Amino acid sequence: MATHGNERAFVRSFFTSPTAVEGDDTAEMLRKASQLRGMQAPDVWVPDNEDATAPTMRDEGVENIVDVVSEHGEEFPGEIHPRIVWHRDDPETRRRGFEHMMRIADPDAGAVEHIDGFAVPEVGSIDDWKKADEFITVVEAENGLEEGSLSMSPIVESGEAELALARIDREIGKRSNNLERLFLLVDGEVDYTKDMRATTPTGELPPWPELRHNTSRAASANGLIAVDGPYDDIRDVEGYHERMTDNRAKGMLGIWSLTPGQVVEANTGPLPPKEGTYLLEVGGETVELDRTGGGAHAYEGDDVELDELDDGRYRLRVARDQRELDEDGLAEALRDRTQYVVAMDDYVDSMAEFEEAKAAGRGAISMERTATLVLDGVEVEVTRDRMWDEATYQAAQTPITLFQEVYEARPDQRDELRETYGEDVVDRAMEVG
Amino acid sequence: MATHGNERAFVRSFFTSPTAVEGDDTAEMLRKASQLRGMQAPDVWVPDNEDATAPTMRDEGVENIVDVVSEHGEEFPGEIHPRIVWHRDDPETRRRGFEHMMRIADPDAGAVEHIDGFAVPEVGSIDDWKKADEFITVVEAENGLEEGSLSMSPIVESGEAELALARIDREIGKRSNNLERLFLLVDGEVDYTKDMRATTPTGELPPWPELRHNTSRAASANGLIAVDGPYDDIRDVEGYHERMTDNRAKGMLGIWSLTPGQVVEANTGPLPPKEGTYLLEVGGETVELDRTGGGAHAYEGDDVELDELDDGRYRLRVARDQRELDEDGLAEALRDRTQYVVAMDDYVDSMAEFEEAKAAGRGAISMERTATLVLDGVEVEVTRDRMWDEATYQAAQTPITLFQEVYEARPDQRDELRETYGEDVVDRAMEVG
Amino acid sequence: MATHGNERAFVRSFFTSPTAVEGDDTAEMLRKASQLRGMQAPDVWVPDNEDATAPTMRDEGVENIVDVVSEHGEEFPGEIHPRIVWHRDDPETRRRGFEHMMRIADPDAGAVEHIDGFAVPEVGSIDDWKKADEFITVVEAENGLEEGSLSMSPIVESGEAELALARIDREIGKRSNNLERLFLLVDGEVDYTKDMRATTPTGELPPWPELRHNTSRAASANGLIAVDGPYDDIRDVEGYHERMTDNRAKGMLGIWSLTPGQVVEANTGPLPPKEGTYLLEVGGETVELDRTGGGAHAYEGDDVELDELDDGRYRLRVARDQRELDEDGLAEALRDRTQYVVAMDDYVDSMAEFEEAKAAGRGAISMERTATLVLDGVEVEVTRDRMWDEATYQAAQTPITLFQEVYEARPDQRDELRETYGEDVVDRAMEVG
Repeated sequence: MATHGNERAFVRSFFTSPTAVEGDDTAEMLRKASQLRGMQAPDVWVPDNEDATAPTMRDEGVENIVDVVSEHGEEFPGEIHPRIVWHRDDPETRRRGFEHMMRIADPDAGAVEHIDGFAVPEVGSIDDWKKADEFITVVEAENGLEEGSLSMSPIVESGEAELALARIDREIGKRSNNLERLFLLVDGEVDYTKDMRATTPTGELPPWPELRHNTSRAASANGLIAVDGPYDDIRDVEGYHERMTDNRAKGMLGIWSLTPGQVVEANTGPLPPKEGTYLLEVGGETVELDRTGGGAHAYEGDDVELDELDDGRYRLRVARDQRELDEDGLAEALRDRTQYVVAMDDYVDSMAEFEEAKAAGRGAISMERTATLVLDGVEVEVTRDRMWDEATYQAAQTPITLFQEVYEARPDQRDELRETYGEDVVDRAMEVG
Repeated sequence: MATHGNERAFVRSFFTSPTAVEGDDTAEMLRKASQLRGMQAPDVWVPDNEDATAPTMRDEGVENIVDVVSEHGEEFPGEIHPRIVWHRDDPETRRRGFEHMMRIADPDAGAVEHIDGFAVPEVGSIDDWKKADEFITVVEAENGLEEGSLSMSPIVESGEAELALARIDREIGKRSNNLERLFLLVDGEVDYTKDMRATTPTGELPPWPELRHNTSRAASANGLIAVDGPYDDIRDVEGYHERMTDNRAKGMLGIWSLTPGQVVEANTGPLPPKEGTYLLEVGGETVELDRTGGGAHAYEGDDVELDELDDGRYRLRVARDQRELDEDGLAEALRDRTQYVVAMDDYVDSMAEFEEAKAAGRGAISMERTATLVLDGVEVEVTRDRMWDEATYQAAQTPITLFQEVYEARPDQRDELRETYGEDVVDRAMEVG
Repeated sequence: MATHGNERAFVRSFFTSPTAVEGDDTAEMLRKASQLRGMQAPDVWVPDNEDATAPTMRDEGVENIVDVVSEHGEEFPGEIHPRIVWHRDDPETRRRGFEHMMRIADPDAGAVEHIDGFAVPEVGSIDDWKKADEFITVVEAENGLEEGSLSMSPIVESGEAELALARIDREIGKRSNNLERLFLLVDGEVDYTKDMRATTPTGELPPWPELRHNTSRAASANGLIAVDGPYDDIRDVEGYHERMTDNRAKGMLGIWSLTPGQVVEANTGPLPPKEGTYLLEVGGETVELDRTGGGAHAYEGDDVELDELDDGRYRLRVARDQRELDEDGLAEALRDRTQYVVAMDDYVDSMAEFEEAKAAGRGAISMERTATLVLDGVEVEVTRDRMWDEATYQAAQTPITLFQEVYEARPDQRDELRETYGEDVVDRAMEVG
């Protein structure tokens, strides 16, 4: 598929695979990646002719890209953006990257019609970005492609490139460049850490919250898409999820994936869960309550005690904090200590309800949610309400618009989405907004 | 009152009220807001003709602003900055905003003499800010007002506007604009979250520390005032306080208020407390000690044990950490674990003492503070000292200068201030610095 | 020594001493500082003619700098960068700073040949930086020094200066200035806090993570060195270490030191430890395990219980989390809960091993580390592996390159380094990379 990048509003997964490895059939890993489908197939697939491929095998890697993409590109369900070699400090590397792009874009080779753009690593200042843009413009002209038809996704892995993020808006749109081809802004924290000369005692990557904020902000300001860098510890699924949650709170909905398993997590992570859950604050930590057979939400642990006293009052202990409360006080105390993780159908219901209210001339309505919590064996009703106005409604659109785009752009994932959420929720989700 | 914005150094509270609601007398809420006095009256009152008012009622809202401000503006103790409609992506909305400003500024309507400026939402890049500035310049010219006499307070609710924050200093002062009219830089996190396409599992707003830093920095670099956005959960007073404390550590002393109750918190929060208190670190948490009748500071809880042993030594247990110490060791351990929350009269005393020392030719003096702590029933004297030099002195001026400005600018709050702090402290606070 | 600043890649310690204090021999403290050697001597010594010296004694301070540096500068093992007076808002202060530099650079006075550059406080926008640069250019010309031979290290203590950090790269290299003389970018959080008008309840400095990030990023983008500001509480060694660890994760390897004791900490902190240690996560906290006589790593505390059950299974309790596991499960659970603090010889061994593999044509190898942990008296083997590729290798170079530079540039510290790490490790560390 070749939709040419910048038509998409969301990218969940950015999956790199080596273009050449030692052995008989060096294109094997590429070919396997090209055949991924459904949740295992990324939104953006990156045949990686840079770090994932040995320096001595990169010319061969380019031929493998051409072979595999010309053969399998048509059927691949996501976009295809090979990563070429580039370095802000090395003109020879830049020349090689140029030649590799020229070869991949050769119309006789049959690959370029399935190529959406290029990922460009190790960029420096905005003037360095323009050099890569100019090379792509030449590649387009030489190969009879429309100017701007190949997108460009820089990998931010230097302080210089981070500074460039705040300058895109001043350069984009000038007649002297084609920076409108920009598509993804991808953070590359391993090399960034090296460039910043940062160290940690254990060798773990620093969290770099400011870099991620600045990348997300640049994406927002220029209609681009922010993607976080690789998460090295591929066995640590929980850590990958925490990172994605943190990223989404920064407006960075995409993440690099190193394995098809990580692709699945990256593809499903940004979509709302099928079922809502309650979170309870216990002694500084947040505990997810378990759904009981009857649809209640139960706390299973030793840190909460709840006793009904004789006079209709309750004694509630949460960690070290113990209080006696009447029924209203108990409900209030629990409301203050709980949060609700919003499910897909909650979004759909609330948006539909608000749309109706708006059509009836009302600008703000109160949405109520009641649930039964089971604490220390005692059932308690807890009601939470929230005001919805235009702003709440529009904020809720972010996950729903993502869902809609995924459903439209990825027919290969529709079955899984319908299985996960149910026919009815999917149908209604496609209608709201 | 119309002091024309940018003369003030501090703004604590930014209070929005709807300009038109359905019902008989649509100006009722506006009129009520205009009659707030004392701690309930904000430093900046914002008749909100944008999000707080239904889209269909905004022309009526403008008439209500004119009516209420012409009638009650004179007596209102704070500044008045209506929020008009504006959008970086919509010229039609910008034209409406222009017309609304023109109407509000009509000298025959009698309101503009009490209007200090306009709040402009949904601004984009700095060039978009200049468009709003230009419209205000035209409004001034058409209505016989001095150029630059109406201030402009942009609401930062997009990545583009956040980038503009770092460019104000390059544009302000140019002959081609009147950006010196800038007054407040206000973060609007609800729409900003939408623009950044950020999501959280529970629908809570992300904390956006980098945005708030960048807003505060722009205020500092350009002599403007940074104001944080609304805090939605109006019942959560503790959360509002924590947010304000966090903001102040970023140099952002003002906050949006949605209710007169929040205005009171916003007005009193940045002023030092009447009484100093001690904070004790217990197992990773910070606990405020209670003031006893005798002026000591007592810990009431189970996580600290202190026993005098036979030989003049002590056994101290704090959470899971237990040690045997001699008297000096005990004092030191407690000094390391305590912090002192500085009271208004501490600031005044220390500043006066330092001023005397400076007059006597000394550049640095040690300030000592001794208190009796009561831990597990045992009394311990703890002495803390701190070096004061010119920098310490100047840093202490921030809250005192704020107090002085409040006292000068808000006669309606003087009684409350005198009642809170006592005559003597207020008099001395007005003299130092 | 006068290597003229910008040849160095690392600065660990930035030590200020007053240039003039009241009493008979006002140069005494300067002279003492000039005679520091070994780990007590800083990489950059700053005779501080600004805040550390009384305003009335600054002309005398300049004479003391001249006297002491001409006498002792030759032997001083670090670089010498006097801090002169400067203020973005006060031309008179700037003129005094100019005159002081002119005097210090007078070749007849005999000091300038040992002076590497000047630290310039209270700078504002990048145009203000250019004013200081221009004065230094004049000082060089007037005194027969090569243009650009004196470096300039601005102290960032205002929002304006923080904004300038993102503009250095656009101005450096222009023919109209000599900003290539920039050397250190030093944060000055006390005055910065005042300029940002930030306050905290207890008067502590805010942490300012964004400022430190922006300073480090500017250093990275322009080949400069980032240095954090002073840590006031000179008795709090642990706090100083935590701050340095946090700084290093931001790429800021240098820190201000107020005492020779802090200099020792600042000089040794960024170098890897002699011995690796294991960290264990226990109930949200990280505990360092103790090295036993036999080279194992033991947990000494009550929060971990480990029992071998009859059937080859284990019961592991860590804080409140208890599980039964088989041997593999136990090893995995401990691997997930531990981290390894990398020692100097680990870096050296791993780098050498990777260099060999690379020479043999392999681009990535797995490094394994096995250790015996002792938990609740039970010994468990834990093996951790990590993939090393070119990027891992280059990241590991940061501490090793620092070590090599220190060893080369500071002969006075070689004995201490050899004593700390052993002859063999030092020799090998000088060869890798």
